[in-house]
Amino acid sequence: MTDTEAGDSGAGDSRPVVYDLAPDCTLEDASVGEQYHAVVNGVVEYGVFVDISDHVSGLVHESNLDRSYDVGDRLIVELVEVKDNGDIAFGVVDSDDYRTEVVDHEIALTPVETLGTGDTATIEGRVVQIKQTGGPTIFHVADETGIVACAAFEEAGVRAYPDVELDDLVRVAGDAEEHEGALQIEVDDLTLLTDETAEEAEERLDAALAERAEPATPEPLVEWDAFAKLHDDLQEVARLLRRTVLEGRPLRVRHHADGDGMCASVPVQMALENFIAEVHEDPDAPRHLFKRLPSKAPFYEMEDVTRDLNFALGGQARHGQKLPFLLMVDNGSTEEDVPAYQNLAHYDIPIAVVDHHHPDPDAVNDLLDAHVNPYLYDEDYRITTGMMCVELARMIDPEITDDLRHVPAVAGLSDRSKAEAMHDYVALAEAEGYDRADLEDIGEALDYAAHWLRYDDGKSMVNDVLNVGCDDEARHEELVEFLSTRAQRDVDRQLDAVEPHVEHEMLASGAHLYRIDVDEFAHRFTYPAPGKTTGQLHDRKVQETGEPVITIGYGPDFAVLRSDGVRLDIPNMVTELNDEIPGGGVSGGGHLVVGSIKFVKGRRGDVIDALVEKMADADLDEELSSTATLDD
Amino acid sequence: MTDTEAGDSGAGDSRPVVYDLAPDCTLEDASVGEQYHAVVNGVVEYGVFVDISDHVSGLVHESNLDRSYDVGDRLIVELVEVKDNGDIAFGVVDSDDYRTEVVDHEIALTPVETLGTGDTATIEGRVVQIKQTGGPTIFHVADETGIVACAAFEEAGVRAYPDVELDDLVRVAGDAEEHEGALQIEVDDLTLLTDETAEEAEERLDAALAERAEPATPEPLVEWDAFAKLHDDLQEVARLLRRTVLEGRPLRVRHHADGDGMCASVPVQMALENFIAEVHEDPDAPRHLFKRLPSKAPFYEMEDVTRDLNFALGGQARHGQKLPFLLMVDNGSTEEDVPAYQNLAHYDIPIAVVDHHHPDPDAVNDLLDAHVNPYLYDEDYRITTGMMCVELARMIDPEITDDLRHVPAVAGLSDRSKAEAMHDYVALAEAEGYDRADLEDIGEALDYAAHWLRYDDGKSMVNDVLNVGCDDEARHEELVEFLSTRAQRDVDRQLDAVEPHVEHEMLASGAHLYRIDVDEFAHRFTYPAPGKTTGQLHDRKVQETGEPVITIGYGPDFAVLRSDGVRLDIPNMVTELNDEIPGGGVSGGGHLVVGSIKFVKGRRGDVIDALVEKMADADLDEELSSTATLDD
Amino acid sequence: MTDTEAGDSGAGDSRPVVYDLAPDCTLEDASVGEQYHAVVNGVVEYGVFVDISDHVSGLVHESNLDRSYDVGDRLIVELVEVKDNGDIAFGVVDSDDYRTEVVDHEIALTPVETLGTGDTATIEGRVVQIKQTGGPTIFHVADETGIVACAAFEEAGVRAYPDVELDDLVRVAGDAEEHEGALQIEVDDLTLLTDETAEEAEERLDAALAERAEPATPEPLVEWDAFAKLHDDLQEVARLLRRTVLEGRPLRVRHHADGDGMCASVPVQMALENFIAEVHEDPDAPRHLFKRLPSKAPFYEMEDVTRDLNFALGGQARHGQKLPFLLMVDNGSTEEDVPAYQNLAHYDIPIAVVDHHHPDPDAVNDLLDAHVNPYLYDEDYRITTGMMCVELARMIDPEITDDLRHVPAVAGLSDRSKAEAMHDYVALAEAEGYDRADLEDIGEALDYAAHWLRYDDGKSMVNDVLNVGCDDEARHEELVEFLSTRAQRDVDRQLDAVEPHVEHEMLASGAHLYRIDVDEFAHRFTYPAPGKTTGQLHDRKVQETGEPVITIGYGPDFAVLRSDGVRLDIPNMVTELNDEIPGGGVSGGGHLVVGSIKFVKGRRGDVIDALVEKMADADLDEELSSTATLDD
Repeated sequence: MTDTEAGDSGAGDSRPVVYDLAPDCTLEDASVGEQYHAVVNGVVEYGVFVDISDHVSGLVHESNLDRSYDVGDRLIVELVEVKDNGDIAFGVVDSDDYRTEVVDHEIALTPVETLGTGDTATIEGRVVQIKQTGGPTIFHVADETGIVACAAFEEAGVRAYPDVELDDLVRVAGDAEEHEGALQIEVDDLTLLTDETAEEAEERLDAALAERAEPATPEPLVEWDAFAKLHDDLQEVARLLRRTVLEGRPLRVRHHADGDGMCASVPVQMALENFIAEVHEDPDAPRHLFKRLPSKAPFYEMEDVTRDLNFALGGQARHGQKLPFLLMVDNGSTEEDVPAYQNLAHYDIPIAVVDHHHPDPDAVNDLLDAHVNPYLYDEDYRITTGMMCVELARMIDPEITDDLRHVPAVAGLSDRSKAEAMHDYVALAEAEGYDRADLEDIGEALDYAAHWLRYDDGKSMVNDVLNVGCDDEARHEELVEFLSTRAQRDVDRQLDAVEPHVEHEMLASGAHLYRIDVDEFAHRFTYPAPGKTTGQLHDRKVQETGEPVITIGYGPDFAVLRSDGVRLDIPNMVTELNDEIPGGGVSGGGHLVVGSIKFVKGRRGDVIDALVEKMADADLDEELSSTATLDD
Repeated sequence: MTDTEAGDSGAGDSRPVVYDLAPDCTLEDASVGEQYHAVVNGVVEYGVFVDISDHVSGLVHESNLDRSYDVGDRLIVELVEVKDNGDIAFGVVDSDDYRTEVVDHEIALTPVETLGTGDTATIEGRVVQIKQTGGPTIFHVADETGIVACAAFEEAGVRAYPDVELDDLVRVAGDAEEHEGALQIEVDDLTLLTDETAEEAEERLDAALAERAEPATPEPLVEWDAFAKLHDDLQEVARLLRRTVLEGRPLRVRHHADGDGMCASVPVQMALENFIAEVHEDPDAPRHLFKRLPSKAPFYEMEDVTRDLNFALGGQARHGQKLPFLLMVDNGSTEEDVPAYQNLAHYDIPIAVVDHHHPDPDAVNDLLDAHVNPYLYDEDYRITTGMMCVELARMIDPEITDDLRHVPAVAGLSDRSKAEAMHDYVALAEAEGYDRADLEDIGEALDYAAHWLRYDDGKSMVNDVLNVGCDDEARHEELVEFLSTRAQRDVDRQLDAVEPHVEHEMLASGAHLYRIDVDEFAHRFTYPAPGKTTGQLHDRKVQETGEPVITIGYGPDFAVLRSDGVRLDIPNMVTELNDEIPGGGVSGGGHLVVGSIKFVKGRRGDVIDALVEKMADADLDEELSSTATLDD
Repeated sequence: MTDTEAGDSGAGDSRPVVYDLAPDCTLEDASVGEQYHAVVNGVVEYGVFVDISDHVSGLVHESNLDRSYDVGDRLIVELVEVKDNGDIAFGVVDSDDYRTEVVDHEIALTPVETLGTGDTATIEGRVVQIKQTGGPTIFHVADETGIVACAAFEEAGVRAYPDVELDDLVRVAGDAEEHEGALQIEVDDLTLLTDETAEEAEERLDAALAERAEPATPEPLVEWDAFAKLHDDLQEVARLLRRTVLEGRPLRVRHHADGDGMCASVPVQMALENFIAEVHEDPDAPRHLFKRLPSKAPFYEMEDVTRDLNFALGGQARHGQKLPFLLMVDNGSTEEDVPAYQNLAHYDIPIAVVDHHHPDPDAVNDLLDAHVNPYLYDEDYRITTGMMCVELARMIDPEITDDLRHVPAVAGLSDRSKAEAMHDYVALAEAEGYDRADLEDIGEALDYAAHWLRYDDGKSMVNDVLNVGCDDEARHEELVEFLSTRAQRDVDRQLDAVEPHVEHEMLASGAHLYRIDVDEFAHRFTYPAPGKTTGQLHDRKVQETGEPVITIGYGPDFAVLRSDGVRLDIPNMVTELNDEIPGGGVSGGGHLVVGSIKFVKGRRGDVIDALVEKMADADLDEELSSTATLDD
């Protein structure tokens, strides 16, 4: 087809156009009825053969000739006919009043998503991964429609096209073939785009990527004003995540290993794996590019970030992958996460956080690419991360909504959210056949499974428990029944063990103080761990007394704090303790009603005593409750 | 060949048979000399052409014709001759007194075990694994003779034949080709068998499978009446295990990580790996389908079962494998295993136990598919699991007997079995060139290796130590010499450390009581661990005194108990302690002379005191001995 | 070409030579102008056809014949001409005064390093690995120039050429093809060399291997007499390591996980990986054959060696690899390593040690193949392992010198070496743009990274920190800045915690004694660990007092000892303590100014008291200093 865009310059010029085809033009660049500059390349009895490009030649029959020509003579011809057998007939045009337009060869680019086995194709896109194998070099190229591997062979183990780097724009010609089950282009030619070609392609690709990265905008599962404030932030994270997938970058999700954390991360995993599968021609891409990792600590530990970074650098070195995008889920909002983030700051590793723990935006925001947290909008923990991430997952892939309707209710009950919207969430789940007890059991079962899975994501098992992507309803039910029963039994057993050893005193403020040495009196290295043990004990005491309660569960070098009806301001207490007890090594955090602190073993007595003194002075505030909160 | 079975209905009917071939019949379904219903499909000068099926046509020469025929006319013909060039000659049969038998096309099925590269073949069998790869779908199909992978390609990463599910009966036609070193059928056609075809195939396959699953019945290595009681139970487990292999199901063995546990599990591993290799066309099948895992605790821990289940679900999700068969070895008979078993009960995971620890059949049997334990026949720990499993392994694969003759003696000495048959077992080993000291050294070396290997099965090293499948006698000897010497040195060093701190008292009953705080006075985190340290100390004291002895080795939250000549009934003591010491959190188990209990750290003093009081009241019984038992 | 070497026997014999070609000789073994024994194989009108071997036949034209011949007649011919069409013309030679030389078929061997895809080639070499796959058997064959995989197929999963074993000499004919990215010979024929052929090949290969194993002899980075004493030992280790690579044997490096240990092991890794890549046709060979493993303990623990051995045996069983060569770096010289070495002694696992800790040559040397340690030449820890291993790496691959100039300075500062050559090393690094503070920071950063990486080698991250093979200077700098700042902050925080609890007393000798319970008063399970905490505290006290100082950091069952200006002789103290405190279970080691001991928890008080008494009696010696030493 003729490149008529080039005719812009002739707007208003009524003279006929004679096209000057570039040497690499093919018949596809020409059209019947148009006029072309031609050169004679042969003279025969019945006419002359002419070229209008290296690839397009034809006959001017002698009946159309009014004079004789020699090889090399130039003339203007009209393309009269392309015969069935491919022969081309030209006529001579006698004209000296025309304007010439240069025509470049228009390459027919094949969109990656339409590639089929056996196709010979040319694609244009951005290089998103360069993996040097023992044999060919594999360039992963992203166009507007998908990402495909392109294998270029120079010599075994030798980098092909060494000038081409990550993020370069390239044109790749070759045959699409199946390789180990995935479509792959065997590269005939790979050209680095430069100058205007590059600019044009960049513009086109960026526009397409921006459009494709655009998240869906499903109606939220429940109407809720508090939640609506977070909508735009979640859209932005969805956009970032979709863009990350489109750019071929790996994703790593770190999440709190409890019920809410799993209700949050599992839907996001499902949505992202689906989207990765859609974008990549390689069906194994979701497995290679996505990883979900439970974190044991309530913050991003140095050991975890060291491991993550080392893994990422290994992926870069061995597979030529980009460094990953890090998504922190139900975790990551606090000052305690800063050292880990700083460790990543030297690398191209974008970070987004979706969390509902009390955040330190001043400390973390500079280190993050996105930060969603209800406290940033004067809301609080009652909007659980699971609630947010179910919506986030639906923005990434709205198709999975039906799998997720019960999940926010599980998340909310698991974190004992007192949000008014809980009623609606539970109703939504009830419509799917879950009653409130089922949902609570799922939360308990998730928590119990997470405890024993430790650092393993336990994908299949967790999906069965949460009933997301689980294909056997009966198995889901039996598994939840078993795990939750067992979790409850273990909690009861633990409380039975500690109860006789709980020390009780009434504080001057009128609050009850309960203390328990969980290292001495609780079963160790089992479920529930010290934090949850303390939380469960506290909840029981709140229920029993109906009055303000503070509970301290302590071990040799740590203490877990919970309060209902008393304003503790734990970060402030930590600062004071550090001043008052030299060599106490007190650290830790939390907020008004929940926290945990560490100290050196040898000063435990002093630390606990000082702590109790401070608690005795703390103000009552019956609004405050840790039973409706997190992180046992 | 003609399907003469169909002639049953004509028994007693002396009329000649005229066969009516089904349209898809080939020449293989017909025979010279037989008569067939035919249809004229062409009339020529020299005769008429007739069809007896879509694929079988031939000429009736005009010399054989007594009248003229038109196309479409029906007649009865006799197959006279099949010429070298494939031409078929028929004669006309003039008959109206005959009976017709319908003949179905008999497909020549190729037994999987006879498949060779390049064969075009049709197989019939049961689908035992469906793995979706990025490219084709791989159906593993089991017929009467073996299991082969069948690759069906629909589109890259798309499930071929989506209607076909695990356990379905199918007929697969295609070419056997080599793929990554294993024979694989490239599927041309895959048909789900239905109705009678399915029923017939099922019957045939089930019969063949039952026959093939039948264990061997080798003569036991030694004659021993006590052992003979277990023969049928072991046969049943061998049958289950062979059947499991034939069904393509993976196997997972969990075993006690001590000398007896390894003497038991290693032979079973060898036998099962051999049998898997025999059944599967894929030479990597043993590696993919068998896993042996040492358990550190004396029961099936929640963490282990969670890990196992998660691994199994991953194998199902990623490789389309069936869930595994679980074999518990030298472990698994007690009530403490129940929670783990309950966790598996929601999944299709059969469980068999071969153990010689004091069982709780009422608690576990409902959860097991098989349970072999000498106590179930009024025998006891003296029949060690190694003794049982060597016989079990021989029932699975009798070929390996020569590798195993010395193993029961190692097992027995390692668990200090006082069985009368020990004499015979040791004699058997002596005939193989091992003296008693060698066998004891092997047991010590196994125990020592197991300690340092922790969660690793250490296959190569363990095989070298046990001299099962070890190809270098000298290396075996040197390794055993080194490890056993070192083990003994470490035991001596440990006993030297604890001895000065052992507290001694005489109980009113006349028994000696020895107590040692193994956390305070033994080397920690090294070999021997607290349990074995207590056991070794106890043995030394029994030897020194020659009188009734009880030994307690305790740490912050546990105690290990051993008795010789005193009847302790530990389960009962645990129940009593739990009642008497609220918040003591006492749990644990054992039986008359050996046990271990846990409690909360803060009540250790009370628990130990109460325990000692009970021991003081315990009856003497000189028959009872823990030196001849297990689980240090 | 004619085999004229065979003519040796004819030296001095002036008679013309007539060659007797072996039946398998081809035209390549013959030359125009030479004479051959021939046999008539056909008589035609225009002459006779003669054979001079099974593969070489031609015509004697009748014009050259002076008599008639019959088939089978023998004659002597001269090769006159090889025509363009391949026809060969012979002339008759009439001679009876000649000597005969037998010519064997000369096979043109292709050197492995020149193999290209598609070549048909014959190679000769030694079998260095035999891997049985599910398909073919893969023989890795090493000739004088490289190592290539040769795939021989007998039957799927069946061992091809079962007589051929590791280390055998073979001739392999086949086509070089690319397989999974690496060049591989598809074997047509594989012959075991025997007798003289084997001897000849062995001689040739051994000579070539010896020559190729010869290390480079680069000028040391700095001139230093003390260091020069170690030159020959390092050359010997470089030779051993190069030889190991040439023999296709895997390598396993165990190193101390601190700054010096990483400065030592990383360059050696780089050099060896380069050399492996050079020797092997398979570009993945470095990954398959080299492994660097940090050791947490200051000696080779039983658990580590068990794991290493098990891994090695697995590599042998699964991949047919040789057992590995073990290189101990900054670790391995002491008596505490003996048990681990003894465990390996039963296997073909050579061991070399490059260490600068106080060695026990009497204990270890018998178990080692090489042992480089400055103490063996009356030098000391001031020559750090990093200094030695940078030179070792350059002897293995001198090309990497430019990457390593700053590394010895980092190593020296990290281990606080007081060597006079430190000045030169630092100057060398300064010339590369590092100032002294940068180098110290790198050391701290390495130490900090190693702490959090635990058992992971963290290759990419460590290379970035050390700036060896790091491609982004800015990232290196930022990462070091961050990690070292954080390390220093954590050290300060730790010292702040312990300082108030440090107990001080003046010993009679005039030395200060500082004691700290690091378990009670230091932060646990974080950086810095107890050993480094004690060291840092000690350094601070030495600086503060400027007088002789001993520091003891102790926990429940261990103590770390440091001294400046006092001669402690720790091994002797351990021996005495063991005698004096029965059941104290005292063990451990060290030397004059640094050490660590273990004991049972219950005797801590006694052990520490006795220790302090001994220290009070120890002689002052102001030369001695542990601040300039190792192993915090």
